[in-house]
Amino acid sequence: MTDHTEPTVLELGLPMPVRSDGLPARVRIHEVGPRDGLQNESVALPIEVKAEFIGRLAQAGLRTVEATSFVHPKWVPQLADAEELFPRVAELPRQYPGLRLPVLVPNERGLDRALALGATDIAVFGSATETFASRNLNRTVAESLEMFAPVVHRATESGLTVRGYLSMCFGDPWEGPVAAEQVVAVGKALLDLGCAELSLGDTIGTGTPGQVEALLGAFAAAGVGPERLAVHFHDTYGQALANTLAALRCGVSVVDASAGGLGGCPYAKSATGNLATEDLVWMLHGLGIETGVDLPSLAATSQWLAGHLGRPSPSRAVRALVGPS
Amino acid sequence: MTDHTEPTVLELGLPMPVRSDGLPARVRIHEVGPRDGLQNESVALPIEVKAEFIGRLAQAGLRTVEATSFVHPKWVPQLADAEELFPRVAELPRQYPGLRLPVLVPNERGLDRALALGATDIAVFGSATETFASRNLNRTVAESLEMFAPVVHRATESGLTVRGYLSMCFGDPWEGPVAAEQVVAVGKALLDLGCAELSLGDTIGTGTPGQVEALLGAFAAAGVGPERLAVHFHDTYGQALANTLAALRCGVSVVDASAGGLGGCPYAKSATGNLATEDLVWMLHGLGIETGVDLPSLAATSQWLAGHLGRPSPSRAVRALVGPS
Repeated sequence: MTDHTEPTVLELGLPMPVRSDGLPARVRIHEVGPRDGLQNESVALPIEVKAEFIGRLAQAGLRTVEATSFVHPKWVPQLADAEELFPRVAELPRQYPGLRLPVLVPNERGLDRALALGATDIAVFGSATETFASRNLNRTVAESLEMFAPVVHRATESGLTVRGYLSMCFGDPWEGPVAAEQVVAVGKALLDLGCAELSLGDTIGTGTPGQVEALLGAFAAAGVGPERLAVHFHDTYGQALANTLAALRCGVSVVDASAGGLGGCPYAKSATGNLATEDLVWMLHGLGIETGVDLPSLAATSQWLAGHLGRPSPSRAVRALVGPS
Repeated sequence: MTDHTEPTVLELGLPMPVRSDGLPARVRIHEVGPRDGLQNESVALPIEVKAEFIGRLAQAGLRTVEATSFVHPKWVPQLADAEELFPRVAELPRQYPGLRLPVLVPNERGLDRALALGATDIAVFGSATETFASRNLNRTVAESLEMFAPVVHRATESGLTVRGYLSMCFGDPWEGPVAAEQVVAVGKALLDLGCAELSLGDTIGTGTPGQVEALLGAFAAAGVGPERLAVHFHDTYGQALANTLAALRCGVSVVDASAGGLGGCPYAKSATGNLATEDLVWMLHGLGIETGVDLPSLAATSQWLAGHLGRPSPSRAVRALVGPS
């Protein structure tokens, strides 16, 4: 249970100490449910439900909650209400000290919108592979970096913190396995632009723990230590938590997850489910790693949201803790 | 893909070498779908489907397939056909060299039935906790060991190989966390009776990787190395694969799993799903660990069985590979 009367070490953003067993003493969870999760859900949610969802996540102790995306509404209809939603949650950090509410911005136009609304944290979304860059960003990898450069530059000049997402770090549906050198090259370029943190995404969920260790080792060899890296695993093949364990052992202490496993229909072949925050928290707390999260409160939130989505949560821990919605 | 013309090293049962990264070069999967999986499924399957299921598992390359249980039909109606089923599959090892078909026997009466049918491998099922021993076996732990003693003795005298299952090794729904010393004491007693292998079960799925390392460390300190141990994880809280990774790092090279995650309804609060064999194989093959299993063939088998059970497989890898049934 988190005591909200004074900020915890997690909320103060202090560096994560490492324990004698090599695991971090604390993990900061980067909750992506309201953005990465909802953008892949087909049921349109009312703005009131989204705002309440974000508030409940903060109340459950999460301190980094990616709130929405300032992408063009044509591409992500679910998040077309970003302009109206963000002001509804922007005051939450007063109630929950240390709470950060990053928003995704695809380009300078998105940055303008985020700046106008007073966002303090943004994220840009790059691709490690040419095929996905072409399909998702309609650009080459080099062109996408050119597009991001003024976004990151202007954001950091305005005092914002910028996170870089890198997708397809382990496998690509068109290109197959992705070479670690390629991921490191694009990832370093994003960090060199001024990103404070780089989130390595296994977008199609095919990665396994040995690949995780190899990629993190390649970053370390290139001078990028785990303190600047986060991991973002999808549970498409059930590998997300084992991959997370491998990353923790390599020194990573920021892990992306989605409340209730939001973001992939568990019954569709194209399921691209994010790692469920509850499954992650169960493991971390079992390992004695501090997260600041109140698990029953979080699981109740995911069950409540599953009711609004009209289907059970794909999170195993949610089902075990509170039953199907 | 497994070549069935000559036995592989896995089929010959050679010891598992350890790689430079500390992981085993090969893992023997103890497939429990037809027994532990089906006994928890409520849809009664025709005997022809069960026999075909076991045959397909062998064809997919699995070489240890727990076929059924000689428990009293009153307790497990799904497996009441054990007497008829076993002879239908008993000839499979001629077709698939190295294939073993263990059967569960609860007591001497069960052993008599197994011996009469020519079984070569049996398993007994003990509990690490008094409460579960009382509820599941209607005995104290000491009394259950007394019951097993003549079973194991007579079986080994008849040339059979005996596996010991130990349930509730990490948590017990009535007693909470289970002390490692208690698990080691009961586990050693089962081994001392003559069990060739001991399978450590996380029956309620609450365990996390640190507990796995602690328990395996406690066994090692008591003189029981990982070469005599197997792990049996349930995915109730999504922890099974991360726990498996921890066990592999401790030297365990025999892992129990259930094809398609058979054995726990994914939509019920009481879900007690076994680790899905496909999710396990995806990780092992990704790690470069040999299993002898042809994953597409196995996933197709699970999808086929899911059709007979009238619900999609809870295995994430199955859904990703072949889609919902």
